[in-house]
Amino acid sequence: MKAGVYQFNPAFGKKDENLKNVLSEVKDADLDLLVLPEFFATGYQFISTDEVAELSERIPDGDTTGCLSQLSHQQGFYIVAGLPERDGDRFFNSAILTGPEGFISVYRKTHLFFEEKLYFTPGDTGFKVWKTGIGRIGIMICFDWFFPESMRILSLMGADIVAHPSNLVLPYCPAVMPVRCLENRVFSVTANRTGEEKRKEGKSLKFIGQSLIASPDGKVLIKAREDEETLITVEIDPHISRNKSLNPLNNIFEDRRIDMYRKLTED
Amino acid sequence: MKAGVYQFNPAFGKKDENLKNVLSEVKDADLDLLVLPEFFATGYQFISTDEVAELSERIPDGDTTGCLSQLSHQQGFYIVAGLPERDGDRFFNSAILTGPEGFISVYRKTHLFFEEKLYFTPGDTGFKVWKTGIGRIGIMICFDWFFPESMRILSLMGADIVAHPSNLVLPYCPAVMPVRCLENRVFSVTANRTGEEKRKEGKSLKFIGQSLIASPDGKVLIKAREDEETLITVEIDPHISRNKSLNPLNNIFEDRRIDMYRKLTED
Repeated sequence: MKAGVYQFNPAFGKKDENLKNVLSEVKDADLDLLVLPEFFATGYQFISTDEVAELSERIPDGDTTGCLSQLSHQQGFYIVAGLPERDGDRFFNSAILTGPEGFISVYRKTHLFFEEKLYFTPGDTGFKVWKTGIGRIGIMICFDWFFPESMRILSLMGADIVAHPSNLVLPYCPAVMPVRCLENRVFSVTANRTGEEKRKEGKSLKFIGQSLIASPDGKVLIKAREDEETLITVEIDPHISRNKSLNPLNNIFEDRRIDMYRKLTED
Repeated sequence: MKAGVYQFNPAFGKKDENLKNVLSEVKDADLDLLVLPEFFATGYQFISTDEVAELSERIPDGDTTGCLSQLSHQQGFYIVAGLPERDGDRFFNSAILTGPEGFISVYRKTHLFFEEKLYFTPGDTGFKVWKTGIGRIGIMICFDWFFPESMRILSLMGADIVAHPSNLVLPYCPAVMPVRCLENRVFSVTANRTGEEKRKEGKSLKFIGQSLIASPDGKVLIKAREDEETLITVEIDPHISRNKSLNPLNNIFEDRRIDMYRKLTED
């Protein structure tokens, strides 16, 4: 199967324009799975609850979900993409999964980063993995990468591929994702954005690009540059992820000593 | 405080010779913490239970523990070092901690690698952290690095520094340790060995050296080359590890969502 990322520079608040840009770039792509950045259609740096309220959408009723569901259906590929979700008077940093059958499900970001905490509610879905026609897909969003628990749990739940919509500003993640893949023996598809947002005096955010796809043996299979708008794609065999054996005597999941791990879930 | 590693090529089975080598290289070192490799005095690749029985020692009664306890006491620095331990008719891949007061404690390796499983019992101590005069020291041994749970648990238990006696043969660990430090915001001191062991036809093991000390911000502070016998040392402030704040809104331990982590300790 072919996995891909569209890395670009969304203009803040210009949802229609950003969506149109994405559609025109990916509509004829030869793909089985497309991952788009966190908040790909809205931009990232919200500075008021009013703004969040204006730009967020209900899932699956909103326009962005409708548009991507239709694209998935028409083109026959799966999409994972990030957007601000409204649920009553709460807002979540969410990512949807769509497929040939249309809308599939939503994941709400577990670990919120920095000022996201001012506007969004910590995710209440927990980590989720979906069985699809191309393999088992798990989702985490951006800062979830920092916590080894995120990808560990997705992998223990059976994920072959972890789709990872992101808006990375710290420098570390591109070097960490191959480690996350190695320690769990899964594929990762990190979709980051490019560009800079200057929405408040002295609060400029620069995004680091470098979207990448990594393999269960900890290799970077393809990686975008820091500043390019590009669709990167690579052929992968997600079933490799099902083999957790490192050698004839070590299976990295069977070797886990959960009797020694209680501290991980203690208050 | 000054942390150091003595990286060298132990000769298999020549305990006295290896011990003498270490003592002569480190006895005048200006150090607060010295970490030595896994099985530093015996060599690594055991090929029979008889061999393990012959070269392993009771802890703290054995010669190796006695010798390092005396060295710690005389020189006033802490030592973490790996050795095969005999306890009744069981054998463990263990590491001891000694200090100015002499022998302190032992950790038994939780995750055994490859043919270690033929001769050793999986560790039954669990992960442990000791409050010492130079900060809180946790220990893991070699392949424990592969499991993010190991260093996570040590860090949650309050470790400032994770001492990591190793006999690395896989290529990955030197790139992973800075990630382990970053995700837990602690120091690590990985002591690896050099050289090659050819103890069975077609079973040669080459050790990758590259002992390294990494910091809570994911930087490699010092790293040995692949093949050199060397004492590397670096000045560190272990109290930096107590600050788990990444920015004013993210504390990486307070941000953990243990209600979402149950899968980590489920059968």
